[in-house]
Amino acid sequence: MTRATILILPKEGVFDPQGEAIRNALIHLGLAETLSVRVGKEIVIEFKEADQEKLKQKVEEITKNFLSNPVIEQFKIEWEKEGQ
Amino acid sequence: MTRATILILPKEGVFDPQGEAIRNALIHLGLAETLSVRVGKEIVIEFKEADQEKLKQKVEEITKNFLSNPVIEQFKIEWEKEGQ
Repeated sequence: MTRATILILPKEGVFDPQGEAIRNALIHLGLAETLSVRVGKEIVIEFKEADQEKLKQKVEEITKNFLSNPVIEQFKIEWEKEGQ
Repeated sequence: MTRATILILPKEGVFDPQGEAIRNALIHLGLAETLSVRVGKEIVIEFKEADQEKLKQKVEEITKNFLSNPVIEQFKIEWEKEGQ
């Protein structure tokens, strides 16, 4: 089984109202050390065994075109392999 | 500067309609190898220098009580330290 963890975050400089709201809440809750908060998505996908190269290429392509918005978001993909 | 990355995911077995929708889309887009998809949140927080022990304890507490729902979600927190 192969697991892809896709992490999608707003790019630096893009206004992130959800992050801003959490930042205000943290300061209010006593974390005055808080500088910045960004909120993004984590997508964990498990795949059956497959051609690894093709799989990685396809997941990269789908993340860029469907799961994220490259104009305002950046993403990274982490891969793990488990068992047989 | 200290950076906390909080990863919040629905617990195994909890119905995740957003993950289900992405699973269907992936299969439709040609990724028939897709077994399961879970969608969660990534929250990246940057802090000024502070007492590390207190900071970690406080962030853990706030994540449990405010940022996640422990009934249906699990979380992990990754810490990084940068510069001086």
